[in-house]
Amino acid sequence: MKKAIVIGASGYTGAELVRILVRHPHFDLSGLYVSGNSLDAGKPISALYPQLGQICDLSLQPLPEKNSEAMSALARSADLVFLATAHEVSHELAPLFLQQGCKVFDLSGAYRVNRADFYPRFYGFEHRYPELLQQAVYGLAEWNAEQIRHGDLVAVAGCYPTVSQLCLKPLIEKGLLDLSLPPIINAVSGVSGAGRKASLTSAFCEVSLNAYGVFNHRHQPEIATHLGTEVIFTPHLGNFKRGILATITAKLQKGVDDEKIRSAYAGYYHDKPLIRLYTQGLPSIKGVEFLPYCDIGFACKEGYIIIIGAEDNLLKGAAAQAVQCANIRYGLAETLGLC
Amino acid sequence: MKKAIVIGASGYTGAELVRILVRHPHFDLSGLYVSGNSLDAGKPISALYPQLGQICDLSLQPLPEKNSEAMSALARSADLVFLATAHEVSHELAPLFLQQGCKVFDLSGAYRVNRADFYPRFYGFEHRYPELLQQAVYGLAEWNAEQIRHGDLVAVAGCYPTVSQLCLKPLIEKGLLDLSLPPIINAVSGVSGAGRKASLTSAFCEVSLNAYGVFNHRHQPEIATHLGTEVIFTPHLGNFKRGILATITAKLQKGVDDEKIRSAYAGYYHDKPLIRLYTQGLPSIKGVEFLPYCDIGFACKEGYIIIIGAEDNLLKGAAAQAVQCANIRYGLAETLGLC
Amino acid sequence: MKKAIVIGASGYTGAELVRILVRHPHFDLSGLYVSGNSLDAGKPISALYPQLGQICDLSLQPLPEKNSEAMSALARSADLVFLATAHEVSHELAPLFLQQGCKVFDLSGAYRVNRADFYPRFYGFEHRYPELLQQAVYGLAEWNAEQIRHGDLVAVAGCYPTVSQLCLKPLIEKGLLDLSLPPIINAVSGVSGAGRKASLTSAFCEVSLNAYGVFNHRHQPEIATHLGTEVIFTPHLGNFKRGILATITAKLQKGVDDEKIRSAYAGYYHDKPLIRLYTQGLPSIKGVEFLPYCDIGFACKEGYIIIIGAEDNLLKGAAAQAVQCANIRYGLAETLGLC
Amino acid sequence: MKKAIVIGASGYTGAELVRILVRHPHFDLSGLYVSGNSLDAGKPISALYPQLGQICDLSLQPLPEKNSEAMSALARSADLVFLATAHEVSHELAPLFLQQGCKVFDLSGAYRVNRADFYPRFYGFEHRYPELLQQAVYGLAEWNAEQIRHGDLVAVAGCYPTVSQLCLKPLIEKGLLDLSLPPIINAVSGVSGAGRKASLTSAFCEVSLNAYGVFNHRHQPEIATHLGTEVIFTPHLGNFKRGILATITAKLQKGVDDEKIRSAYAGYYHDKPLIRLYTQGLPSIKGVEFLPYCDIGFACKEGYIIIIGAEDNLLKGAAAQAVQCANIRYGLAETLGLC
Repeated sequence: MKKAIVIGASGYTGAELVRILVRHPHFDLSGLYVSGNSLDAGKPISALYPQLGQICDLSLQPLPEKNSEAMSALARSADLVFLATAHEVSHELAPLFLQQGCKVFDLSGAYRVNRADFYPRFYGFEHRYPELLQQAVYGLAEWNAEQIRHGDLVAVAGCYPTVSQLCLKPLIEKGLLDLSLPPIINAVSGVSGAGRKASLTSAFCEVSLNAYGVFNHRHQPEIATHLGTEVIFTPHLGNFKRGILATITAKLQKGVDDEKIRSAYAGYYHDKPLIRLYTQGLPSIKGVEFLPYCDIGFACKEGYIIIIGAEDNLLKGAAAQAVQCANIRYGLAETLGLC
Repeated sequence: MKKAIVIGASGYTGAELVRILVRHPHFDLSGLYVSGNSLDAGKPISALYPQLGQICDLSLQPLPEKNSEAMSALARSADLVFLATAHEVSHELAPLFLQQGCKVFDLSGAYRVNRADFYPRFYGFEHRYPELLQQAVYGLAEWNAEQIRHGDLVAVAGCYPTVSQLCLKPLIEKGLLDLSLPPIINAVSGVSGAGRKASLTSAFCEVSLNAYGVFNHRHQPEIATHLGTEVIFTPHLGNFKRGILATITAKLQKGVDDEKIRSAYAGYYHDKPLIRLYTQGLPSIKGVEFLPYCDIGFACKEGYIIIIGAEDNLLKGAAAQAVQCANIRYGLAETLGLC
Repeated sequence: MKKAIVIGASGYTGAELVRILVRHPHFDLSGLYVSGNSLDAGKPISALYPQLGQICDLSLQPLPEKNSEAMSALARSADLVFLATAHEVSHELAPLFLQQGCKVFDLSGAYRVNRADFYPRFYGFEHRYPELLQQAVYGLAEWNAEQIRHGDLVAVAGCYPTVSQLCLKPLIEKGLLDLSLPPIINAVSGVSGAGRKASLTSAFCEVSLNAYGVFNHRHQPEIATHLGTEVIFTPHLGNFKRGILATITAKLQKGVDDEKIRSAYAGYYHDKPLIRLYTQGLPSIKGVEFLPYCDIGFACKEGYIIIIGAEDNLLKGAAAQAVQCANIRYGLAETLGLC
Repeated sequence: MKKAIVIGASGYTGAELVRILVRHPHFDLSGLYVSGNSLDAGKPISALYPQLGQICDLSLQPLPEKNSEAMSALARSADLVFLATAHEVSHELAPLFLQQGCKVFDLSGAYRVNRADFYPRFYGFEHRYPELLQQAVYGLAEWNAEQIRHGDLVAVAGCYPTVSQLCLKPLIEKGLLDLSLPPIINAVSGVSGAGRKASLTSAFCEVSLNAYGVFNHRHQPEIATHLGTEVIFTPHLGNFKRGILATITAKLQKGVDDEKIRSAYAGYYHDKPLIRLYTQGLPSIKGVEFLPYCDIGFACKEGYIIIIGAEDNLLKGAAAQAVQCANIRYGLAETLGLC
């Protein structure tokens, strides 16, 4: 049993990590932490999430001061840590934990893109640990297992980037797309993607269905960098709690047909237990809610392809993929504790 | 044309007032106001409510200081004012407007219950204007039209109290209920009842269906006082935007049957255009959304009655009833601008 | 006052027509009809739609037999008829009403596309009235007012085609788009678009968010034909009752910037009261629910444009546009009865 | 390993049984059946429930004819059968399976109430197996474990009856309620309670929030019979997929206070792992969705108590309780496969 802790356990992603880890046969969930000045510090997690009653009886502890001995001791005490924290917080915490030999699975964007201008431009801060950024492994589990197996800092892929790349990478790798047209990704996310917080934007009466971050969402460069090609990405907020549906339109190379597409997906994913390829019908939000899968379906016509991808943004798009990466890191079956 | 202004126009109730007044044939909506330090001051109302685009091009103006000349001038400039403000704010604003001869329609709880201990206990403040409280008319339009016609300060009934009383009063007035059992009111309200604000409680992912304020909601004493009898009132928050459904269980006097109940309702409401009595089926939220009606249906069996009442909490439970009261006050048809 | 009747009044679009017409100052709603063998025949419309209680007290009458004298008499009795009927039914009814001098506003797809292969291929029937198809005017009100003014048979544009074309036509007409890339239309519709019927697909527990009709929805050729250029159209079903949000990605001609786009929209729509152009923010479903508008916003970057359009599918996408066409036909203000 | 089969696997409750059984460590799910003339026969369960993709690869088989040898063979082949079938179907199937020595867990109402007039009056059929009705054990797991342990036919309690009785029984058993007032149960159920079928009542656009079955729902006599006292039961349909929230108002015996109530609940439930007693806050739908628990909270004042109970109608109200009963029957931990 490896000792695992979750930092930022009060958020929606943190709570999902708790739900998964508490039953995980190889990770022992030994502590939940929130920022030292959080009003939630001291509360049992089930006070925030009644659904976790009798499932997890841990309380949210205040995270020690950054450079304190208590923090070092905490880091030493754990084999692995899941950072379900804000980008700026993960940015600072990752080195502290790594220094004490703890494996870090970061669910924020702080170590996902190794590009100098990326953080100032899209996250509003200068990255202070370029050497770590260099070492960080991108946690897109189906594609980077080999690196994840040897990484100490895994930057778990973002929610939109996960489904987008899982849909596109097989076709790009096989050269089936005509990339003179950037793939056009339209995606709708449930409101949990905005996090657990008091905010007018995610107030019940304000939510309906609308696009946001058009041409300037930070997941666009994450997707483009890791795909190695430009994409047009238009995220939307939908009136549901969890799930992402991505509708991707792309141009096919001449002569590419359904069969070649199907074969490309099958080739890459036939041994990937968390990818479900649709042979009839198309993925939907209800198919993936509360489940760790990414569902993929498609249709082609006259040189274009529409790919539909779906995932639970809190699971395959966050907590489940983080645990999948941890499973891989420790040489376990990648679905352990997830299915 | 009478000049009307709305204070607190940025809230959900305020916006509904705007939507109604902008088309009202006898009231001229001449100004929208928000608290002087609101971040919304200066914005067009349609920046907050895109649905009002091209319907209302007024901007939200900052309310002048309480004792300023500008405030007096504002009060003098208007014939009538709708206060869609917090209880404490209405409490202070009502006298200022009355002093300048403006008719006041207050949608808060500040002037609804003329009882010494009520405000400290349920609203957390000492009422400073007992003489006004004395003069204030309770704006339950179907029952107090005569007083409303002559009142200068109308305290529009609360959302839950409106539907609860409209369901119960005819039966109580006719002596059909055995009040040794307090009528048991279970009601579910849409989230808009909590107001337009950033709050975790009304965050999209937090809302499902739950009871709140059990045995201590401030609408319980409002209902009991105006009915003249105790009630057990259990409000719930539901996962929908607008509407209240009330399910009321009460004990019947011996010998009371369907026919007597039906006749009591018909007797009081046959000439009330905003009450719709169901002769078959039962009211539902979808029947009243965006409409100014209160719908009432019932079933009796073995000495008990179940009454179902429904209203749009923002309309018959707030804005529409406020305008209905104003219509009555000015001798207009009570549905003017509403249907 | 012109006498108007609605056929197919039991459906969602029919009910919206009723709601509008019952208050229309120039049209007198004199009859509601349903198919002769409908179980709803004989019921008051408010039995199906409690929200219409006290608003409309008409009952649903059985439509007379097709070639009966009663049918001729009905057609003669009305000045205008709204056909909110299935495509096959409208296909047969339109000539019967036209023959008796009645103006026909058809909300089905039966007369929208004057192309020989269109009906067999996309609607599953051979069109029997090619000469009528020839005369029919396409009811996209902002663009075809001149023809509508003189038409006797108006084929009101489909829900998706309305918002799609309203977003794209100004840019195509001004030559601002590089049409070597077909505009890519992703749209999400509320479930009311599927009509009022018992169906597993639109059962509450089955609906979430999913694409459907990929590459083969009948609105694709309707859009393409009337735009005069190909489009890629991917409709989705969303978990809400009413509204359509369209997200359109298109390639710009070299040198086209925000300013040129804005100017194109303003040029065509500055005098169109039912189009609301967003100068900041983007349209959303909540902005258009229960309203007759089509909202349009956009953003440009590096040679591409994302256009966001929103409408209430039952109003601007159906009933409101039908009445708007009727207003135009009779020389009335086009928003009469709608705003 | 015991061989289990599910009949009626295409319904919502059936699918939940599949989801649970497929991972159950002691039951081997060996077959899924639907009515022989169902259109779903032959399809993989994941064609109906994409969420079950890669979780269950079984197909829905047509149930053999009632008196066929194939049916006998099927019954002999299984150790236990879950009947997620219509009442009339369960009524006929239970004896067939019992005859072959199969343990039967029936989720319908066919064997729940051993009263002569009950079935004709509330279910519309004459019960043909009174001796079986006599032997059937009522599957309210927390209360009837002893009988369940020895029963061959377990009539799993209904969804509303489960939560209602779990809330009331401890107080009634301890004599804490003044039953001169029948406990008043108001409950709201998600739409899945209506089953998986095409029906206008459960169509997405028709659902809002409304009472139904007032004074005549078949769960009222089920509750009253098993509680041994009358209740007033008012069910509602809510606009959510799964879950039941029950709000129960009852009169307390003189001198009964919070402490006595709490102690009664704790006394009966301290060792019941699927009951979660709230010591602060109140149960909500979101607390129980997708979980096997029944949550209970309460508040008292001036001689009355409000009890709030919540459960997932498809789990504790159906599938999870059925498996809990099966676990008990086979001497397993009652939560096996559920938590």
